[in-house]
Amino acid sequence: MKLDRLRQSFEELARFTDEGEGINRLAYTETERNARNFLIKQFERAGLTVRIDYAGNVIARREGRSPHLPVVATGSHIDSVYAAGEFDGTAGVLVALEVMRSLTDENVKTENPLEVIIFACEESARFGASTLGSKAMTGRLDPAYTRSLTDKNGVTLFQAFKENGLDLEEVHLAKRFRDEIKAFVELHVEQGPVLEKQGVAIGVVSAIAAPVRFHVHIDGTADHSGTTPMDYRHDALLGGAAIALSIEKAALAELEYGTVGTVGVFSVKPGAMNVVPGTADLYVDIRGTNRESRQRVVAALKTAVNDVSKARGLDIWMDEMSKEEPVQMDSTIVAELKSICEERGVSYLEMSSGAGHDSMNMAALCPTGMIFVPSKDGLSHNPAEYTTMEQLMEGAEVLRAFMLKQAEEF
Amino acid sequence: MKLDRLRQSFEELARFTDEGEGINRLAYTETERNARNFLIKQFERAGLTVRIDYAGNVIARREGRSPHLPVVATGSHIDSVYAAGEFDGTAGVLVALEVMRSLTDENVKTENPLEVIIFACEESARFGASTLGSKAMTGRLDPAYTRSLTDKNGVTLFQAFKENGLDLEEVHLAKRFRDEIKAFVELHVEQGPVLEKQGVAIGVVSAIAAPVRFHVHIDGTADHSGTTPMDYRHDALLGGAAIALSIEKAALAELEYGTVGTVGVFSVKPGAMNVVPGTADLYVDIRGTNRESRQRVVAALKTAVNDVSKARGLDIWMDEMSKEEPVQMDSTIVAELKSICEERGVSYLEMSSGAGHDSMNMAALCPTGMIFVPSKDGLSHNPAEYTTMEQLMEGAEVLRAFMLKQAEEF
Repeated sequence: MKLDRLRQSFEELARFTDEGEGINRLAYTETERNARNFLIKQFERAGLTVRIDYAGNVIARREGRSPHLPVVATGSHIDSVYAAGEFDGTAGVLVALEVMRSLTDENVKTENPLEVIIFACEESARFGASTLGSKAMTGRLDPAYTRSLTDKNGVTLFQAFKENGLDLEEVHLAKRFRDEIKAFVELHVEQGPVLEKQGVAIGVVSAIAAPVRFHVHIDGTADHSGTTPMDYRHDALLGGAAIALSIEKAALAELEYGTVGTVGVFSVKPGAMNVVPGTADLYVDIRGTNRESRQRVVAALKTAVNDVSKARGLDIWMDEMSKEEPVQMDSTIVAELKSICEERGVSYLEMSSGAGHDSMNMAALCPTGMIFVPSKDGLSHNPAEYTTMEQLMEGAEVLRAFMLKQAEEF
Repeated sequence: MKLDRLRQSFEELARFTDEGEGINRLAYTETERNARNFLIKQFERAGLTVRIDYAGNVIARREGRSPHLPVVATGSHIDSVYAAGEFDGTAGVLVALEVMRSLTDENVKTENPLEVIIFACEESARFGASTLGSKAMTGRLDPAYTRSLTDKNGVTLFQAFKENGLDLEEVHLAKRFRDEIKAFVELHVEQGPVLEKQGVAIGVVSAIAAPVRFHVHIDGTADHSGTTPMDYRHDALLGGAAIALSIEKAALAELEYGTVGTVGVFSVKPGAMNVVPGTADLYVDIRGTNRESRQRVVAALKTAVNDVSKARGLDIWMDEMSKEEPVQMDSTIVAELKSICEERGVSYLEMSSGAGHDSMNMAALCPTGMIFVPSKDGLSHNPAEYTTMEQLMEGAEVLRAFMLKQAEEF
């Protein structure tokens, strides 16, 4: 495999972006379509045959000696959030391209066919819904829901499909079958600080955490900040502050399970210097791979809400906005990725993914795993997102070794 | 004095309002001018002579037997915030009108002249600057500052003065002299909950609290809320939460001094459910009548900032936005108001004012006091602001008794 060629791929793909800081290559846009078509050409030049499915997923196939055998697949996405970096998703696709190119360069043959999938619409940035392509491929897309989706300009998902030569009414046809795919492994940047901080090259993902999300609304009393004695107040902000700190405390107690709890949105009203805040709204995200651990943090949140409500005379309600279930990666694949790292003398860490990925959906269809490579400063969804070519090449070697093992190089 | 006539005064004055919820009678507007002219007529009918000074303050004088003696004055304001109630300021003016009417009805004569002042522009709602009229009357108005003031429509204070037949360049001529006024007492609604909660009729104000205000800016790191372990975070929101709770704790320890500390504005960025807050901005108002007590809360805030910064690896700076000094009411007037309450068998409480008033400025010119009457639920700057006519009449009796004593009824 060639590091310079991989770098060139990143440089070439980065040109496909709309105006704005960083990368802006939103799902189902013309810009993403152009990027996709560029990549299709590259895969074809590397000897793969390419088709686009009913959801807009690109499926590039490198034929095996036994075309009837299930494929060994990898892939990720090339759509981005606004003001994104060059690595989220893209890394998994361009590393896979490099793996394919190297196999063709070296005239490597495999028993099973290989596949690289470019999933459509992984990011929720445009339509507020994530991993649409892999959901379609795994039969998990709710038709009524997809018909309701529009972007911020009022363009419906239905129209966006049309602009891509697709028909949203046929998206169910993208569903693949359980025996089509032998294994799926996605390479992705970590999007967190753990690998870098621990000086480890490869993360072998054992599970993908899932969030449960709450809206906590606090009703206090908006009083004059000068004329209301401290012991007569019902300050909604202070109630919210106490709840936020309780969530942190509960999540810190679950450090060994990697469960995290975050208040990302916190707003108070009326928001004037001379008025005691009358209401506060908190949006809470609690996620983990261990259900019991996550549940303990949720329970601590509920206890905090009750305690704060009583102690401060605040009226608090809490609404569970969404709850997703954590997804385990296939244990055989996890073991195989670890043994590949060991064989190659590459440092690795078994870890969970705090962010969602197409692999969450693929895991319902076939044995699935993920390879993480380090993210500089843990940054992602940010123009400063960065992973070195050397780090990506380490990931590429592990991915290539895995695919050849699974697909029985001969 | 007549309760029904007082009620009618409130009903009549409430008609002078611009569109919107509650009362909207902003300083130096045509609506306020119309209200002022209506009141001038009422004072003239009650036998007073009225002039308007160079700042737009209305000065209604009831002549005494010795016109050369210093006047005994009362007064308040009739300008309002947006969506105001009917009592803030207005109470002091209409009660004073009722007192004057009653004196004339009863043909009461005094040795010293009496005065009712309607101060211009007490509220900062229009020009972002409060108590302009009483500042001008006491020679505390900074000319350069007043020339810089504009309202949200871009109308300068200079233009607003012109529309009122005034010249901002002459506003310094509004200054009065130390021997002109023997005593000034302002009746005002409490704007807080203390009198109502304690079931007390009259508040005798011993001091007016003044705020010191801070902007606290917290720089943490905006990380992905799923992929950043709890022990790798620098969450600006949590730092802000800890600081807000520290302020509360410090102010609660100063309960006996009535010092209060409030975080009225709290905002975090980027403010997304899946991002650990990277920055937080807090606006803090700490006020009290006791300088040492207030300083202890300020010191606790500084300690909290240091502790939180170290413990959480956050970069925090703190900017003192403004600092005003508390104002003591005249002790002789306080004693006299208390003894009047005692003589009349009216319950009273010596208390401080947490809000600012024109009396703050008048105190620099002449012996000054304030009479508070209860505010329902402590509400103010709110259409629901309410004080009963009976409660106002109690205040009126105390004010009348005070003025007659000071002005030597004969």
